Amino acid sequence: MRVNAYAAPAAGQPLAPTTIERRDVGPNDVLIQIQYAGICHSDIHTVNGDWGPPPFPIVPGHEIVGVVTQVGSQVTRHGVGDRVGVGCMVNSCRECTNCRNGDEQYCTQGMVATYAGTDRDGSTTQGGYATHVVVDADFVLSVPQSIDPAAAAPLLCAGITTYAPLRRWGAGPGKKVAVVGLGGLGHMAVQIAHALGAEVTVLSQSLKKQEDGLRLGADHYHATDDPATFNRLASSFDLILNTVSASIDLDAYLGLLAVDGTLVNVGAPADPLSVNVFSLIGGRRSFAGSMIGGIALTQEMLDFCAEHRIGAEVEIIPAERINDAYERVLASDVRYRFVIDNDTLA
Amino acid sequence: MRVNAYAAPAAGQPLAPTTIERRDVGPNDVLIQIQYAGICHSDIHTVNGDWGPPPFPIVPGHEIVGVVTQVGSQVTRHGVGDRVGVGCMVNSCRECTNCRNGDEQYCTQGMVATYAGTDRDGSTTQGGYATHVVVDADFVLSVPQSIDPAAAAPLLCAGITTYAPLRRWGAGPGKKVAVVGLGGLGHMAVQIAHALGAEVTVLSQSLKKQEDGLRLGADHYHATDDPATFNRLASSFDLILNTVSASIDLDAYLGLLAVDGTLVNVGAPADPLSVNVFSLIGGRRSFAGSMIGGIALTQEMLDFCAEHRIGAEVEIIPAERINDAYERVLASDVRYRFVIDNDTLA
Repeated sequence: MRVNAYAAPAAGQPLAPTTIERRDVGPNDVLIQIQYAGICHSDIHTVNGDWGPPPFPIVPGHEIVGVVTQVGSQVTRHGVGDRVGVGCMVNSCRECTNCRNGDEQYCTQGMVATYAGTDRDGSTTQGGYATHVVVDADFVLSVPQSIDPAAAAPLLCAGITTYAPLRRWGAGPGKKVAVVGLGGLGHMAVQIAHALGAEVTVLSQSLKKQEDGLRLGADHYHATDDPATFNRLASSFDLILNTVSASIDLDAYLGLLAVDGTLVNVGAPADPLSVNVFSLIGGRRSFAGSMIGGIALTQEMLDFCAEHRIGAEVEIIPAERINDAYERVLASDVRYRFVIDNDTLA
Repeated sequence: MRVNAYAAPAAGQPLAPTTIERRDVGPNDVLIQIQYAGICHSDIHTVNGDWGPPPFPIVPGHEIVGVVTQVGSQVTRHGVGDRVGVGCMVNSCRECTNCRNGDEQYCTQGMVATYAGTDRDGSTTQGGYATHVVVDADFVLSVPQSIDPAAAAPLLCAGITTYAPLRRWGAGPGKKVAVVGLGGLGHMAVQIAHALGAEVTVLSQSLKKQEDGLRLGADHYHATDDPATFNRLASSFDLILNTVSASIDLDAYLGLLAVDGTLVNVGAPADPLSVNVFSLIGGRRSFAGSMIGGIALTQEMLDFCAEHRIGAEVEIIPAERINDAYERVLASDVRYRFVIDNDTLA
């Protein structure tokens, strides 16, 4: 099946319309007509080769929402007409300890990324900037009807990336949670942490987005370009979720943690960070990292977001504006996620 | 009350005999005749000014075991003749959140260190290289009679420093725990982790102490100067306790952690460490620090060690050999702790 898509044809070239082949629907596969695909910063990193030489051409996109149009003979969990989603992975070995623990993203054989990944049949995966995708049913999520489908798309990456560490490190009533950065990830983290019952503080470079932050559910908002912030908030947070990929002064942020507090990075700066071990020892603190989340947890997150009426704040664009959107993401000029209307690819 | 002691008189000078004043026994105080005082690497760091300019003269020693010879009028938990211990702290505010949570070592007003600390009356504290010490009863531990008193002394620092993180991060049946370094701290960590029911691996620079490690309770022993160790043990530990204060290749050790694993430093290298955040994100791993433990937990540790017949392996020395012992500690020439026989100070 040949479908329309938008692809990065080669290093340094803008994305352009193309067609790609989707595999036949196998016994455990689902064919999805894609309605919306979010533009994640990872798409840009991958296309730009920031994370290694990519296998061009690349059709990015791992924040996919659509409707099932065909299912394989053995698929029971999804049916034609269902609204479904696909996130950052489309396969894993399912047999290793991590897969069996529901952490398919940490599959010891390597999870299969939704695009620019090597599928188990050896082919290179292509993502959501396309009209259709064929995915193993076990990696297809149910997207509740009560979430707007465009607002739901970014949940498949930005949502689970923030939900997983918030749950893992116990964000909830009585807990003070800080979210560093109010971008695509941060604006999800604030909504989710608030809905989980935590007291939420945004730590943003400036107060420019303060109004948004408070509207999204933050209780407090502080500018990190004001050094007084670090004195005022010393030793006060149980959990700090750092959504910023740029290098930060780790010791300064660790100093904001209470005893037993954890600073979790969900982004990774390209260069190593420096950490003074006294910053950790001085409060039995932890510095941790987290990468997306497993399939079962992703479904839990979608159901949680539906229950709490949480979605991404999106700017919907036609496919022809993808390159402009990339520019604007790099300039932090988006509140808070671009989502492609995939009907414009048809 | 004037008592005999051994003190570092000034920067760069060897320790020498002296006398110091101990305060009168107040209503909540306990007077202890010291039997044994362990020599901790911290003593050497402090005397050498590695952690800042110290208030000379300094009587080091925060691994103290002795017998109560007098108690204040309000003391109920200790009586004359009891065997007791004093660790790294002798006071705290008792009112802050951390003190109320039993983490007096993280007192927001600053705990009062057993030596070279500023007591709440403004005086400088002097430690256990002395015949006697007067300590607030709330910071005096009960040392069970079933532990040899010399072997018990190092528990007050090396014991609690390793017990606290092993408990905090869940060392126990079904958990794989690695101990980095088999020195004063490491040889306690191995015994405690084994007694807690964990599967224990020692990661030591060479295999020189392998026999000791296995005898102390380790199930496995690997040399870190063999690069194959890092491949063979990749992603296998739930908890790694790093007892080495020298800088390590953090990313290499983080790679040994399973998903959700934690590497805890109990020592702190003087220089910052470098960490590649991908090492954490790639397995939802944590890098943490821990400093001694609260009073209640220290008592729990002493009772646990008595129950499991755990003590330090010690080389008992007379006070006049303290300077030699310092040299040998710096040369890693001790298995595994020097303990001063304080009767030799009388």
